[in-house]
Amino acid sequence: MTIFQQRQRLLQDEMRKRGWSGFLVTQNVDIYYYCGSMQTGFLFIPTEGEAIYLVRRSLVRAEEEAAAAVEALGSWKTLGERLRARGGAAAGEPLRVAMELDVLPVQLYVKLQTALPGAVWEDGSLLVREQRMIKSPDEVAAIRAAARVVDDALEAVIPHIREGMAEFELMALIEHQLRLSGHQGLMRMRAYNSELITGMVASGASAAVPTYFDGPAGGTGLHPSSPQSSGRALIQRGDPILVDIGCTIDGYLIDQTRTLVIGDLDPELQRAYDVAEEVLRATEARLQPGKIAEHLYLLALDQVSEAGLSPHFMGYGADQVKFLGHGIGLEIDELPVLAKGFKYPLAPGMVIAIEPKFTFPGRGVVGIEDTYLITEGGYEKLTVSRGGIRHL
Amino acid sequence: MTIFQQRQRLLQDEMRKRGWSGFLVTQNVDIYYYCGSMQTGFLFIPTEGEAIYLVRRSLVRAEEEAAAAVEALGSWKTLGERLRARGGAAAGEPLRVAMELDVLPVQLYVKLQTALPGAVWEDGSLLVREQRMIKSPDEVAAIRAAARVVDDALEAVIPHIREGMAEFELMALIEHQLRLSGHQGLMRMRAYNSELITGMVASGASAAVPTYFDGPAGGTGLHPSSPQSSGRALIQRGDPILVDIGCTIDGYLIDQTRTLVIGDLDPELQRAYDVAEEVLRATEARLQPGKIAEHLYLLALDQVSEAGLSPHFMGYGADQVKFLGHGIGLEIDELPVLAKGFKYPLAPGMVIAIEPKFTFPGRGVVGIEDTYLITEGGYEKLTVSRGGIRHL
Repeated sequence: MTIFQQRQRLLQDEMRKRGWSGFLVTQNVDIYYYCGSMQTGFLFIPTEGEAIYLVRRSLVRAEEEAAAAVEALGSWKTLGERLRARGGAAAGEPLRVAMELDVLPVQLYVKLQTALPGAVWEDGSLLVREQRMIKSPDEVAAIRAAARVVDDALEAVIPHIREGMAEFELMALIEHQLRLSGHQGLMRMRAYNSELITGMVASGASAAVPTYFDGPAGGTGLHPSSPQSSGRALIQRGDPILVDIGCTIDGYLIDQTRTLVIGDLDPELQRAYDVAEEVLRATEARLQPGKIAEHLYLLALDQVSEAGLSPHFMGYGADQVKFLGHGIGLEIDELPVLAKGFKYPLAPGMVIAIEPKFTFPGRGVVGIEDTYLITEGGYEKLTVSRGGIRHL
Repeated sequence: MTIFQQRQRLLQDEMRKRGWSGFLVTQNVDIYYYCGSMQTGFLFIPTEGEAIYLVRRSLVRAEEEAAAAVEALGSWKTLGERLRARGGAAAGEPLRVAMELDVLPVQLYVKLQTALPGAVWEDGSLLVREQRMIKSPDEVAAIRAAARVVDDALEAVIPHIREGMAEFELMALIEHQLRLSGHQGLMRMRAYNSELITGMVASGASAAVPTYFDGPAGGTGLHPSSPQSSGRALIQRGDPILVDIGCTIDGYLIDQTRTLVIGDLDPELQRAYDVAEEVLRATEARLQPGKIAEHLYLLALDQVSEAGLSPHFMGYGADQVKFLGHGIGLEIDELPVLAKGFKYPLAPGMVIAIEPKFTFPGRGVVGIEDTYLITEGGYEKLTVSRGGIRHL
């Protein structure tokens, strides 16, 4: 049984507990997760029986790749009958079909409801996200490979950083290195309206400019129509250069931040950086199965408060974000989130990026981010770049 | 009055005709289109009165950028009252609020419905897409700038193309050039599950591998989790190298394809390329206000059929796509589509990428794509790269 079929079985076990008839998987990333192919169509996983992948395009490619029976999607008129036949609802009982309502657009939802009159629709988003939270060894291997690619790119560009270089020039160099090493060119994010270029690379004051992006660092970006990450600011001596980058290898992301500086940081920023490393060390000591995700965040808040840096933690003032880390895998905004309200106990197989950072308006952002695998005995650090401020 | 306010007025005129109370704009690109800012929040444009931008993050940045009154989003409990106060429904009448139901996820829709009990919800997607179909001079200027960036990148990389170069190496070079010239690093696409890296750069047989992507060219991509565009295939002498690329400048996209070859093409592929240019020339002659979008496609089908190339047009066999061109602007999949069922008469201000291509399984894809502005007198070609096969 392939890893994809094992995932289908696990989903079926959960659906059985809930009395659902099946899951109509519509999102490209979730379709890939459950069948190993990302062609256009719907993957229907009935609670009992075998999955069927109804493909509009490319059928040939889906047949080569997918760990599921593949059929042409065909007309919407027959879709209802075909799902009903597979769904196995008892006579007189309605089909209970789950979908990912966190990402499914309303228009498509309505069209599917019309194709399956009488079905009862369930929101299966959280179930899928919780299953995807626990990574298998093949997923961890891809994330490990991505971590090496990011480290290689960082080492390759560091000798080229100079005073007067524009942020976007540095970003262009990094992306070029990542692409030459197999980065797939996009980094996926699940939340509505969320976009990622290749992370946040910015320096000095412009790194501290707040953005809409749900992360601690900002960046001016190149234009109000792309208001995040690198802009046209020139890197100056003494500016903290925040290099928060990732890449995608075999579908899987890594996320890592290092702080660089030409010369030395102002002592206040250096101290804040040191506190960020202390927060990371203290959090590492708590990375054990059974620890509760939100506690790691709350304990970090206490530590930051004791250091007198609360107003600067994870953004500044009204633009602070309220988390310390996030799950990562096929998408960058996975579970668990290290934030208030996330009661998940840490468990082996979780992969979490942890990113204590401090923002100083008009001066810059300093911090560090590493990505960790939770293991039976504690954790394994997946990112491999050496820590500490990099002085250029 | 700024261009953004003019757009709000035009939308209000259309809403008045429909008896709607207002439009709750939720998608980042549409929010930018109507107010010039892309922070996280909702833009409410009442049919009568002034727009209000309810922002979660970053409020400061929205205040600097937006052509609308800005307020903190605040709690969901007050959202309903605030919209109702602005919406101006007569006593006893329900609010009729439009949203972009083609992109809005179900979960958020349900949350908004709960916040505004009793409101009637309308699908405003098509209205927004039809308004965005007609570009203003500032939008055309950005697209023109993007066209020059793509041409510069093409000219910069051509001297570096050599036998044995991997497709992804060529793509990495192109992207690096684009980024150095101000490309924002992502190309937006509206349709669910649709993603774009930087276009489709692929050579020989691998360019003809079909993909899920809703376009005529394919590409293996680097992995089943990113199954489009450049892969690891090595460029060989005599292979058609399809360079279908775009970039984003000040939010606006360009789309252009050129066919390159080291040495010469096989005569059959050369002839198909020549037919592609003939189709483009014949289509250009029809680019006049009043011509119907679908007719351009149907006439191209006739021309291709006379040339005996129908099975190869815009993909091969079951993987053919059924269009000749598409609108382009803030997103790559805009209106009008040159395809059956699209009855839009061409009108000044439309910007359309037209891309006749022929696919030969096992051998490659040849074709050309240029982007055109429809003018009062006919058209202006916005792409500037010279046509014809480029022999290296």
